[in-house]
Amino acid sequence: MTDATNLDGLTTEQKASLGSGADFWTTKAVGDIPSIMMTDGPHGLRKQAGDTDHLGISASVPATCFPPAVGLAQTWDPELAESVGAALGRECQANDVQVLLGPGVNLKRSPLGGRNFEYFSEEPLLSGAMGAGWVRGIQEQGVGASLKHFALNNQEDDRMRSSSDVDARPLRELYLRSFERVVRDAQPWTVMCSYNKVNGVQVAHDPFLLTRVLREEWGFEGVVVSDWGAVVDRVKSVAAGLDLQMPGGESGPDAAVAAAVADGSLDPAALDAVAERTARLARVAHAAREAGAAFDAGLHHALARHVAGRAVVLLKNDDALLPLAASGSIAVIGEFAQTPRYQGGGSSHVNPTMLDVPLDELRAAAPEANVSFAAGFTVDGSGVDADLAAEAVRIAAAADAAVLFLGLDASQESEGFDREHIELPEEQLDLLAQVIAVQPKTVVVLSHGGVLRLAPVADLAPAILDGALLGQAGGGAIADVLFGAVNPSGKLAETVPVRLQDTPAYLNFPGEGSHVRYGEGLFLGYRWYDARELEVTFPFGHGLSYTSFRYDALELAADGDGIRARVTLTNTGAREGREIVQAYVSLPDSSVQRPVRWLGGFASVELDAGETATVDLVIEGRDLAYWNVELDRFVVEPGDYAVAVGASSRDLRLDDDVDVEGEEVRTPLTMESTLGEVLAHPVAGALVAEQFAALPMAQADTAALGMDMMRMMMSVPIERIVGFAQGQVSREQIAQLIAAANAA
Amino acid sequence: MTDATNLDGLTTEQKASLGSGADFWTTKAVGDIPSIMMTDGPHGLRKQAGDTDHLGISASVPATCFPPAVGLAQTWDPELAESVGAALGRECQANDVQVLLGPGVNLKRSPLGGRNFEYFSEEPLLSGAMGAGWVRGIQEQGVGASLKHFALNNQEDDRMRSSSDVDARPLRELYLRSFERVVRDAQPWTVMCSYNKVNGVQVAHDPFLLTRVLREEWGFEGVVVSDWGAVVDRVKSVAAGLDLQMPGGESGPDAAVAAAVADGSLDPAALDAVAERTARLARVAHAAREAGAAFDAGLHHALARHVAGRAVVLLKNDDALLPLAASGSIAVIGEFAQTPRYQGGGSSHVNPTMLDVPLDELRAAAPEANVSFAAGFTVDGSGVDADLAAEAVRIAAAADAAVLFLGLDASQESEGFDREHIELPEEQLDLLAQVIAVQPKTVVVLSHGGVLRLAPVADLAPAILDGALLGQAGGGAIADVLFGAVNPSGKLAETVPVRLQDTPAYLNFPGEGSHVRYGEGLFLGYRWYDARELEVTFPFGHGLSYTSFRYDALELAADGDGIRARVTLTNTGAREGREIVQAYVSLPDSSVQRPVRWLGGFASVELDAGETATVDLVIEGRDLAYWNVELDRFVVEPGDYAVAVGASSRDLRLDDDVDVEGEEVRTPLTMESTLGEVLAHPVAGALVAEQFAALPMAQADTAALGMDMMRMMMSVPIERIVGFAQGQVSREQIAQLIAAANAA
Repeated sequence: MTDATNLDGLTTEQKASLGSGADFWTTKAVGDIPSIMMTDGPHGLRKQAGDTDHLGISASVPATCFPPAVGLAQTWDPELAESVGAALGRECQANDVQVLLGPGVNLKRSPLGGRNFEYFSEEPLLSGAMGAGWVRGIQEQGVGASLKHFALNNQEDDRMRSSSDVDARPLRELYLRSFERVVRDAQPWTVMCSYNKVNGVQVAHDPFLLTRVLREEWGFEGVVVSDWGAVVDRVKSVAAGLDLQMPGGESGPDAAVAAAVADGSLDPAALDAVAERTARLARVAHAAREAGAAFDAGLHHALARHVAGRAVVLLKNDDALLPLAASGSIAVIGEFAQTPRYQGGGSSHVNPTMLDVPLDELRAAAPEANVSFAAGFTVDGSGVDADLAAEAVRIAAAADAAVLFLGLDASQESEGFDREHIELPEEQLDLLAQVIAVQPKTVVVLSHGGVLRLAPVADLAPAILDGALLGQAGGGAIADVLFGAVNPSGKLAETVPVRLQDTPAYLNFPGEGSHVRYGEGLFLGYRWYDARELEVTFPFGHGLSYTSFRYDALELAADGDGIRARVTLTNTGAREGREIVQAYVSLPDSSVQRPVRWLGGFASVELDAGETATVDLVIEGRDLAYWNVELDRFVVEPGDYAVAVGASSRDLRLDDDVDVEGEEVRTPLTMESTLGEVLAHPVAGALVAEQFAALPMAQADTAALGMDMMRMMMSVPIERIVGFAQGQVSREQIAQLIAAANAA
Repeated sequence: MTDATNLDGLTTEQKASLGSGADFWTTKAVGDIPSIMMTDGPHGLRKQAGDTDHLGISASVPATCFPPAVGLAQTWDPELAESVGAALGRECQANDVQVLLGPGVNLKRSPLGGRNFEYFSEEPLLSGAMGAGWVRGIQEQGVGASLKHFALNNQEDDRMRSSSDVDARPLRELYLRSFERVVRDAQPWTVMCSYNKVNGVQVAHDPFLLTRVLREEWGFEGVVVSDWGAVVDRVKSVAAGLDLQMPGGESGPDAAVAAAVADGSLDPAALDAVAERTARLARVAHAAREAGAAFDAGLHHALARHVAGRAVVLLKNDDALLPLAASGSIAVIGEFAQTPRYQGGGSSHVNPTMLDVPLDELRAAAPEANVSFAAGFTVDGSGVDADLAAEAVRIAAAADAAVLFLGLDASQESEGFDREHIELPEEQLDLLAQVIAVQPKTVVVLSHGGVLRLAPVADLAPAILDGALLGQAGGGAIADVLFGAVNPSGKLAETVPVRLQDTPAYLNFPGEGSHVRYGEGLFLGYRWYDARELEVTFPFGHGLSYTSFRYDALELAADGDGIRARVTLTNTGAREGREIVQAYVSLPDSSVQRPVRWLGGFASVELDAGETATVDLVIEGRDLAYWNVELDRFVVEPGDYAVAVGASSRDLRLDDDVDVEGEEVRTPLTMESTLGEVLAHPVAGALVAEQFAALPMAQADTAALGMDMMRMMMSVPIERIVGFAQGQVSREQIAQLIAAANAA
């Protein structure tokens, strides 16, 4: 991969200097290698106005604030993510930005994760597919993505020191998998190395993650850039394969790298490799600049509204309360209706080009209606305001229906710290109860970055729209959905648990002493609730529509090491609608521990009222595979895979199973193989059975032990049978037998 | 410790030969060092009849079968355990046995653990206290104990290879703690090294566990004997501090040790150390033999009955159904009434000196009553037998009350394999429903080694007696309790969960690929249910009485690094009774993660009807301590400890708190200390605050990020502030400041 000619004529010092930025946001121009600019993302540009030599905390230029990942994920639409990526690419070109720092595909391990709003899902397939779409979109515009935060940076608490301690299977099958999909499918220009440690090793120093996994296994060809401040020891980082330390502005690390090459402690080839990759990125990115590029803020706002409309999840709709008639009197309640909550705090915070106010959008969408408004509560944490609540109850009682905007204020969730609970503020829940008491036709609209405990809302409200965070055009999108201009089709990308105490990482989050144990293993998100048979308030993949769909005629076929599924969908309701069809896989006879079911594929279909269509789902072999710890690679087991297709992870309509050939893995016998394993071996089994029958233990008096002696012996390593056999069989005999069996 | 003169005149080969047995049950006589005999335990001798050169699976000599640990633990009475130990010691002397292989103090990590019936509890304090009592008792008789299975051998599945992967705090605060207590308090003559690995290291080869922890930290002076077949490589075992490999009978390992000394790969001092300890044990044990010792089988049976009576837990007693009147007609139902289930299968299986049949004992205890009997079901797994059930229903309907014996047959739980569920057989639950339907006055008596799901029983039966396993005199003890000759006082030593899916190790048990992750961390047993706020069917420590107790006047006082608690108990009922008073500790403001509450001490008191007494509880400092990972030792934190006193972990009657001085631990600042930690430092804080205020980040425009910038910066390691400070502060300045702060 290294193209040494790229670096012709550069001194060691110059090569080293390529490995850190010029300032907060740009790389250094060295020789004929140009400087490029990076800015924060991912759902909009945060390009600092003015100089780039600040901490990046002054005002940023206006940019379209698309729905943050938490909202975008609810579309379950990688092509829509690609459209958003492309629009972001246009805005980057217009602002002379070469790399946008996104997407974030970390999995939501705990609902408390402070940065969850920047991530897509608890599900690696969905996260990876959405991230890959986003990357394709932006890179089609000649602007680089930065896939982040690689890896296992799933909390904010002590994020620069904490070690994510995780076993091999959850590491591979969950936490790395979303990154792997994006790298393999979309080859981002850069990957951002995260702040934390993994299994005790600083990721910024980790050759396993940064070189072996990322480059050698996945074929990543781009630049690894550090998260801002993630490098502790640049020399170690260079040796591990980290190309670019950000922010720049400090000369010490460059000098340390040059000195390490000089004194022989750093291989010059390692420096050449990182310098060459950084130089290539700079040249490619610089060459892709489009002079005089511009973007149409109005068009992008419209795209943001379209995406937001698709992101809204209809959680509940008793008695078809929604859509509302755009007439009569409607009480709009909640501070968020006039002060929308639409994005999160921190490095992803965008200065929007324009901002839809929900109340205004509702009024605009229903000009015939009499729309009243009351704030109902404050969002400053000051608690119940009886006057505001009373006014809200008054207008709710007087109206034909109420729309109540509830949610979390930006101060309650942000980059930099994790949440401590998942509750809505008490004053909001109080108000909900009071409003429902006088106005049964109340629709709740939710705005929040992290998952909330919704049981108290679901118990009271007949209809709930969950917007999560919808970006700058969310207000318009909510109006579209409320009045039916858009038929909601979003699906939850994260389970809504009954209680925080039910969540998988509870008691193992955020850890202590700079260690966090991923004790829940493979059982993240819905995998946990399903395996522990826990009730949830709303399951992963849930989302209703104003119409209804019938599922028929599931057909499965093996396809290489994957599965093709086809199902017939019919829109059985009275209006057009879109359904996200989900396929969940199981392997009940797996040789290893597996989730009860896991997402294998998904597809969306838009149908007119009464229309029928077939939907094809591809379940790839890689999404059937498990990580084989002994072989240190993924394996697709042979077996009868069950596939269930439906509208959510707990609304499965049809199922069938299909035989997948897969790969038979036969582990060689060793002296540590158990008697049971040896007896099960096709060659050794018969031989050993005969010899074993002659030993005294095989004639055990079961009554003397009150148990089945043979069952106990099955778990004894064959080598240790020697001790029990009291001289009647030798180590050498066993070793010969095993060698013969393995050679057969 | 090494007394080299012990080994005077022995060759290397002779020393090596001391390190393995002569055969299955005896050590070698070498020079003037005598041979000694060990036999299985722990709740009775399993001394093989005839030669000792077998696998130990032929019939054993008759011995008293005391209640297995699962039953004994329910007495919560270390002095009673001491009495049992003493009786076992008499039986060993009578049988010329020098070491009895017990007690087992592994914690019950999962209710599925196949050998749970041989262990005491899910609680390390209770397990350790019971084990220490047992050891004191047997060793007072000049017979050695063998504390087992050290360590983390908490499952049967793949027990000879599986690695128990556990973090430092649960390792120290839970799994090693029960062993530590027995070693420190009772100094067993031997400790048995377990089969498994811990964190990837074979315990039989592990100098950390066998030497550093056991001998250097805890002061163990005795012999480490391998579990039978646990040694893989004897040379490694000798180097690690394992003294005696069992079983013997194979010459290879001794020769390998001698060869390793000869070729210099094994330190001769290591061989001297193990040989000296084994020789000393043999001499001491041999010298303690009592020629012509005998025991009174009748007296021991009576002791077994007394212990069993104390072990019975009255789980439920609606409308004071119990005790039963010893008159009228009583229907006794269930195969277990005539074929008692009283011990578990495997190496602990005792050939009892006599055996109480519950049905006979009930008839003997109630000669005036008309006691009918029906088996109701079979225990051979053949399912519902409609004829047997019908007969049972018939006699139940005809009687004044019914006593229904339910439980698990020995074939359903044993050493050598774990259970796969915690259900009573369906035919038994079916019968229960049918019997209750015709006879509301039905008492259920339970016999089982592992915890059962009892919700279906508790939902139906008005009264439940839980005997777990009660040993050979259990039948008499049940009669004693049923008719009130004994007022039950046992308390559960293990939580009865609502469902297997609720249990802490579910999904992490028994692991796969020879690894099991202790992902639940510190939250074993009731610590898990309390922290996750899960309902349980019967909580840890639960057990009713035929009388009632009032708790008054809790007084707490700090005592060194521990706490003394005093409470006044009054027997408010109409008959004498015994209460086990439990004290649970909390530290809400702990600097580390803690259980919601944990057992700090317990005591029992016997009171006549109407009697009042004060009860003193000692909560030792070691039971307040947590394992400080940085310091690598236990620390008692200063703070206000809350102490709640009551009749179970969820029936807490009184609480108060007390200030314990403890030990202030101040961690030195380093370059990796966060800005928040530095600012909190009494010396460095003010200095840094001043310097930091001058940096651009301190003047951040919060609005630009939509968040609190300072809150985010607090978690940045001080060293990495340099990068963010863009040249305004140097690494050297920070290093100087930290050095000054640490020196102050």
